[in-house]
Amino acid sequence: MAESMGNLRRTRYCGEVSEQDVGTNVVVAGFVQRQRDKGNLIFVDLRDRTGIVQLTFDDTTDREVFAKAKSLKSEYVLIAKGEVRRRESVNTEIKTGMVEVYVSELRILASAQTPPFHVNDDGKVGDEIALKYRYLDLRREKLQRNIQMRHKIAKVTRDYFYENGFLEIETPMMMKSTPEGARDYLVPSRVHPGKFYALPQSPQIYKQLLMIAGYDRYIQLARCFRDEDLRADRQPEFTQIDLEMSFVDVEDILEMTEGYIKRLFSEVLDVDIALPIPRMTYKDAMERYGSDKPDTRFGMEIVDCSELVKDCGFGVFSGAVAAGGSVRAIVAKDGAKVLTRKEIDKLTEQARGIGAKGLAFVRWVDDAPSCSFSKFMSEEELSALLAHIGCEKGDVALFCADRDRVTLPTLGQIRLTVAKKLDIIPEQFNFVWITEFPFFEYDEENDTWLAMHHPFTMPLDECLPYLDSDPGAVRAKAYDLVLNGTELSSGSIRITDFELQQKMFESLGLTDEEIEAKFGFLVNAYRYGAPPHGGMGIGLDRLSMIMCGSDSLRDVIAFPKVQNASELMSECPSVVDAEQLKELHIASVLEEAE
Amino acid sequence: MAESMGNLRRTRYCGEVSEQDVGTNVVVAGFVQRQRDKGNLIFVDLRDRTGIVQLTFDDTTDREVFAKAKSLKSEYVLIAKGEVRRRESVNTEIKTGMVEVYVSELRILASAQTPPFHVNDDGKVGDEIALKYRYLDLRREKLQRNIQMRHKIAKVTRDYFYENGFLEIETPMMMKSTPEGARDYLVPSRVHPGKFYALPQSPQIYKQLLMIAGYDRYIQLARCFRDEDLRADRQPEFTQIDLEMSFVDVEDILEMTEGYIKRLFSEVLDVDIALPIPRMTYKDAMERYGSDKPDTRFGMEIVDCSELVKDCGFGVFSGAVAAGGSVRAIVAKDGAKVLTRKEIDKLTEQARGIGAKGLAFVRWVDDAPSCSFSKFMSEEELSALLAHIGCEKGDVALFCADRDRVTLPTLGQIRLTVAKKLDIIPEQFNFVWITEFPFFEYDEENDTWLAMHHPFTMPLDECLPYLDSDPGAVRAKAYDLVLNGTELSSGSIRITDFELQQKMFESLGLTDEEIEAKFGFLVNAYRYGAPPHGGMGIGLDRLSMIMCGSDSLRDVIAFPKVQNASELMSECPSVVDAEQLKELHIASVLEEAE
Repeated sequence: MAESMGNLRRTRYCGEVSEQDVGTNVVVAGFVQRQRDKGNLIFVDLRDRTGIVQLTFDDTTDREVFAKAKSLKSEYVLIAKGEVRRRESVNTEIKTGMVEVYVSELRILASAQTPPFHVNDDGKVGDEIALKYRYLDLRREKLQRNIQMRHKIAKVTRDYFYENGFLEIETPMMMKSTPEGARDYLVPSRVHPGKFYALPQSPQIYKQLLMIAGYDRYIQLARCFRDEDLRADRQPEFTQIDLEMSFVDVEDILEMTEGYIKRLFSEVLDVDIALPIPRMTYKDAMERYGSDKPDTRFGMEIVDCSELVKDCGFGVFSGAVAAGGSVRAIVAKDGAKVLTRKEIDKLTEQARGIGAKGLAFVRWVDDAPSCSFSKFMSEEELSALLAHIGCEKGDVALFCADRDRVTLPTLGQIRLTVAKKLDIIPEQFNFVWITEFPFFEYDEENDTWLAMHHPFTMPLDECLPYLDSDPGAVRAKAYDLVLNGTELSSGSIRITDFELQQKMFESLGLTDEEIEAKFGFLVNAYRYGAPPHGGMGIGLDRLSMIMCGSDSLRDVIAFPKVQNASELMSECPSVVDAEQLKELHIASVLEEAE
Repeated sequence: MAESMGNLRRTRYCGEVSEQDVGTNVVVAGFVQRQRDKGNLIFVDLRDRTGIVQLTFDDTTDREVFAKAKSLKSEYVLIAKGEVRRRESVNTEIKTGMVEVYVSELRILASAQTPPFHVNDDGKVGDEIALKYRYLDLRREKLQRNIQMRHKIAKVTRDYFYENGFLEIETPMMMKSTPEGARDYLVPSRVHPGKFYALPQSPQIYKQLLMIAGYDRYIQLARCFRDEDLRADRQPEFTQIDLEMSFVDVEDILEMTEGYIKRLFSEVLDVDIALPIPRMTYKDAMERYGSDKPDTRFGMEIVDCSELVKDCGFGVFSGAVAAGGSVRAIVAKDGAKVLTRKEIDKLTEQARGIGAKGLAFVRWVDDAPSCSFSKFMSEEELSALLAHIGCEKGDVALFCADRDRVTLPTLGQIRLTVAKKLDIIPEQFNFVWITEFPFFEYDEENDTWLAMHHPFTMPLDECLPYLDSDPGAVRAKAYDLVLNGTELSSGSIRITDFELQQKMFESLGLTDEEIEAKFGFLVNAYRYGAPPHGGMGIGLDRLSMIMCGSDSLRDVIAFPKVQNASELMSECPSVVDAEQLKELHIASVLEEAE
């Protein structure tokens, strides 16, 4: 049987015992990281969420206490009282390494079976076993630090927005299923047979209603749900810093957010983010980086060579331009050594996977560049081309010729691959706003226009005249915040004018019935007076991941789910009682193949 | 078409325009509460979440602006710039009543249809229409104030617990369904046919795991779900201030919570709560107030008269005592006028509804008390009885004779009804801790012992010897915080000793298979070393309701659901596409009767 704490109460966290405590008694509590038994001398590393402190027992220690210390094993739980002493052999690897606690009173609060893996960051533990015993995995220093940092990120977030007049208002988690967006998670209703709630993909509708209701500034750290096929950097449930402001335009929201980012990085990481955060239109981002979430930590921008090559002898180039497309290139400075012919072949494969027909290249190792299309071009033409794109000795240039919507994303992705191969991405935080997204997206398959963000997004004032005449030219008051090539947040100014909203719906080809079915009460709400408003949602999980310097969301979520949306520790989802399903008026339909 | 804000930006909230602003220009924005057109003088009450300010337009106002002002109707949305002036006729009912804004620039940002009801607190609007147009209902001053107060309550909660070293850690919303407790809301899995997630009834399991994982102090404002039949003061989704601490015993948790309550009421309501909060054992609470959530704002405690009446001639009394029951009474001081015979009959009806056979009474209006059982008792016996219970002229005494588990809850509820009738409940905040709950509850029907809280609750140290010999005598380290007769929070110290836990399960008659099926991985987790820990969950909705002085949860939840768990605004739950159900491997099973 375990001992009770009795009257002993912790006076210091382990990591906080310091030289200032020398000569005084402290009470510490935690888990045994390891016990070293040297006969008449025993050392115990005691661990809590703040760090480790050494407990010491020697031949002057009370015999009963010493005997207990002898019995200790990893992960036993203790509370111990003792005098803080200066250590003889200083351990510079831990912050309490100058001191030790010479224990006079010890209680073993819980024993522990030998854990399936040793609790530290060194060992390589399989994902499956770590997640099954997540409560042990969570004892690791790295996860302890990450979870604490995430707490701090959330705290600073609330501090900042609260100070700026935002109210945190909870919106429903069981709401109406909407046919828009990603797949909903559904919740069958017991009281209403045949009907279902949906878990929110975001509180979008409710926050717009809160603006209509006059709450002026809203924030919520909101749990959201999307039943999508999981990628490594996605979880079925995730947390969004969701906000909305009234009586504002784009500029006000960007400014408010920039103040937040500056404060957050300063308080949590002691990193200064220079303001204003650079802005780039969607068009610019696509043309320069081939992506609407450009990683601007390095150059290697895409260069348009269409003009130079439109009349050249290389049919792939001239043909692409003639067909209304473009020839574009990136230059990997000093990349010739790493990007061997074999590597370039791999990149070409990648480009084909993205949809390009291939890549042309110049690899300039020796005096003369080796060029995949040299026989179609004169030396002068080639020189002019290389000068235009800035390719010099030691560099590799990669070309893509096709329509813009092939060349740009292809080179955008190749650019990232090359940068990783060349290891030229500095460890820093590069933010960039992407603005002026197109409002409409042309759906070739159905010959129709779709809303690129959501249909409540406000067009730029100067684009209103083109709504009918040239939908493709209409840009939206929509903005994304991108950090190191990751989309952190997405937002827009909403349409608050009922008539304009009707017009936008018409442009999208929606009938009144469809509008009612899809957007129902929300559209009606705008009839009763809505202040101009807009907002955004910032992905807290991704933000935390990047700030923790981690590359997996699992490192910043206490109990994550795996790729197939299951949780290995509790083994959920699981089969439930038939009685439960009956009460919910549903039945499982399992096909044989399943 | 609505106007845009242009470069106008709010410089003051409406409610914050003050005499200090006189002579300066301010920009205010909000909704038109009302417009009064007096010909060449127009007044507009402009409303935002902080209050109302008067806009004034007269014959010196720019004609275009004046024309716009003339067109204004209720709920139009404006931004207006103007000079603050002292008002000629002061309005003492609003805090900006000394001043007005003489408008020089006005933009109508949105017009509004005539709303289905006028937006103010005076009008009596039907629940159904108010909830259907919740975004308009939410514009009312009372709801604006409540939602803002709830924000502040949540903020102070986080401030306090964060300052005390609690980490806010998010736990999963899609978890494993457990057969214990209330009915789960289920979420069918698309990836795992035939399997389901459950929405959490509370983060109980996860917070215990977080303690095992060494996070030491955890808090979360957690959304919880229970698919129960709704009462007026319950919602299918609700928010719990969920917390857990390691290396503590009962005393530490009560102290931490008391510090919170004091801070909360001081900061939010400027009310001083005296500490320590009174404590009462479960046994005491039941015997004195007939309830484990006693309203201690008034006396009228239950008095045991069993000894006095056990041999009296009134068979109902003596028989009840002889059968091992009791005779108990409450005295409504000065209640004789209000509690007429007719009223007493109603109370007797209520008592029968609770399970009592009836109520005996003494109603003492004139010189001699009128007594329902006078013919069975001598005058001396009656005098002694009245003296014992403290019944004097002008009072009414109500008696109940039966087993304790009938008399106590009956008089407990009658006591509340009588207090309301007599209007003797003062407006104040009376907290009380209820401690030492019984661990086991005897289930007569199945002749077995059930856990009264949950089976992880730690028994009191001194009760451990009775585990086998006298389960009914085992009290638990469980505690409820009660405010004005409402259970605000419930908590306990958890069993962290694996062997003791096994013993408790055995006492509950559980087999190893049942333990594994019901508590599975959580039980196992305790094998790997768990610090002593305990915590509680505080109902944020109820707490907010009481602090807002409201009597409905709907007044503190932005988008509440009604009795049948539907939301009237969005009309959810709703029918979904057959395709969605197919993907989730479920089908609706609708009986004809439905």
